[in-house]
Amino acid sequence: MVLKNFEELVAKVKSFPEPKRVVVAAAGDEHTIEALKEAVDDGIVIPVLVGDKAKIDEYLVKYNLNVTQDCIYDVPDVDEAAKKAVELIHEGKGDFIMKGKMETAQVLRPVVNKETGLGTGRVMSHFVFDELPYYHKLLVTTDGGMMTYPTLEQKKDIINNTVETLKALGYECPKIACVAAIEKVNPKMPETVEANELKQMNLRGEIKDCIVEGPISLDIALDKEAADIKGFDSPVAGDADVILVPNIQVGNVLGKSITVIAKGNMAGFVVGAKVPIIFTSRSSSAREKYLSLVLAAAVSAGNRN
Amino acid sequence: MVLKNFEELVAKVKSFPEPKRVVVAAAGDEHTIEALKEAVDDGIVIPVLVGDKAKIDEYLVKYNLNVTQDCIYDVPDVDEAAKKAVELIHEGKGDFIMKGKMETAQVLRPVVNKETGLGTGRVMSHFVFDELPYYHKLLVTTDGGMMTYPTLEQKKDIINNTVETLKALGYECPKIACVAAIEKVNPKMPETVEANELKQMNLRGEIKDCIVEGPISLDIALDKEAADIKGFDSPVAGDADVILVPNIQVGNVLGKSITVIAKGNMAGFVVGAKVPIIFTSRSSSAREKYLSLVLAAAVSAGNRN
Repeated sequence: MVLKNFEELVAKVKSFPEPKRVVVAAAGDEHTIEALKEAVDDGIVIPVLVGDKAKIDEYLVKYNLNVTQDCIYDVPDVDEAAKKAVELIHEGKGDFIMKGKMETAQVLRPVVNKETGLGTGRVMSHFVFDELPYYHKLLVTTDGGMMTYPTLEQKKDIINNTVETLKALGYECPKIACVAAIEKVNPKMPETVEANELKQMNLRGEIKDCIVEGPISLDIALDKEAADIKGFDSPVAGDADVILVPNIQVGNVLGKSITVIAKGNMAGFVVGAKVPIIFTSRSSSAREKYLSLVLAAAVSAGNRN
Repeated sequence: MVLKNFEELVAKVKSFPEPKRVVVAAAGDEHTIEALKEAVDDGIVIPVLVGDKAKIDEYLVKYNLNVTQDCIYDVPDVDEAAKKAVELIHEGKGDFIMKGKMETAQVLRPVVNKETGLGTGRVMSHFVFDELPYYHKLLVTTDGGMMTYPTLEQKKDIINNTVETLKALGYECPKIACVAAIEKVNPKMPETVEANELKQMNLRGEIKDCIVEGPISLDIALDKEAADIKGFDSPVAGDADVILVPNIQVGNVLGKSITVIAKGNMAGFVVGAKVPIIFTSRSSSAREKYLSLVLAAAVSAGNRN
């Protein structure tokens, strides 16, 4: 099973017997409440709102969003709201977390706390699903947001995070392309050396439930014709499900190329913690915010099953 | 003056009183002769062919391309052909070089030779013009092909190469975006530190005839709305003419994103030597090869004037 587009993902989530519960930290924010509205109307999520209750109520009225009083926690202090959101996950009162009006670092602090947090022992990474204008299925790009210059072991964690997330969505054996500027291992380009190491780990069974290819250039990963011309024979060539970038500089430019240059749609969240964590930013489109909620709901459902 | 699209560039070159002379090294190659055909028919170039004359003649017949005998040099050995091409430039018998059937390193060896080569003292860099589906003008991306991990001084050279090339095309003061994952200078991200240094060099007048901005993210460089949301005020925001990438990993992914994900058109060559050097690869489209000849002809004309 692979997802062809976001429409398939939305249909899948709408078919679930019940909505997932999203715990929103610092929910007293107009953009956040607005983003929740459509997903609630579609029966995809039930919001659990933590934050400044006066503001929350104001925006709930403005956007005509109905949330029962027992799902609103009045915690005006932002850091306390983040802590409370994590507690609510521990208490089983939510399926995933969404960041409201606070800095990313603020919501992450209680998440990464060794004793009371939501860590799994692995690094956390940013998982982004992209719907591209000319590709035959959704494409994951990772990590363009969390790990800046991951080590080899951290890249392995990022792959594991990604594979686990895709399995929760129903994928059986995703194809991972560890991209670099060239396809040959060149000691002068550490990105190619590590891409090959990841492939070898996969061949030795140290990275499971996926096919890892690398080093592989982006065109070969996405375009079978380019692969054929260059004589690159691999099941990942022209059919990658996941692009693993070597660092945040590459990941950021790839992500921005997709959204700004190619006008693709995207949805994303942080994976590697016990539950997904959505970071929507003010510059994200309403569509991106909605799709991120859909994606997190889908993964939460998969993790439960 | 800025170029809106390739159509403008083609029209400009077609209006020149006479074609430019392209010296092709190892021209006994079907794809190369095929690529020359359209540019010759359009009156843009006159080919000077160096290589295995038997093969050259065979493909000239096949593609019905007429080249006078005094413009064909029978030099079957590939390395000798590269040397001969450089000699012909020194003798004033050509305006720029195009690589035929040989490795990039082979054509570069005689070009970079300190005594007999075509060096200018600056590094050579890859200049690519991209025609994007949703941008209001052509965009230069550099360097995705020559310099792997340029130092700060080399990045300065790359900017100077690029500005000089754009001036030859008629640009007055191009806007250069030194892209990074974030807009703030962060010592943990050397890319942001160097982007800022380049901006400071520009402000101090050490990099001239252009506006350098950095660190700046790709979305802010290309999308005014993203810049406004993030409160980034700069003449380069949403209006960049040039994207300077920090290294080849970023440049390669950006280039492949443009051609494979966004299906943009591109044309490119190596700049920083005394004349442009075109590297067409077999996987390049016929359109890319044609446009690269057009671009080199335009720049050659500008350099002469």
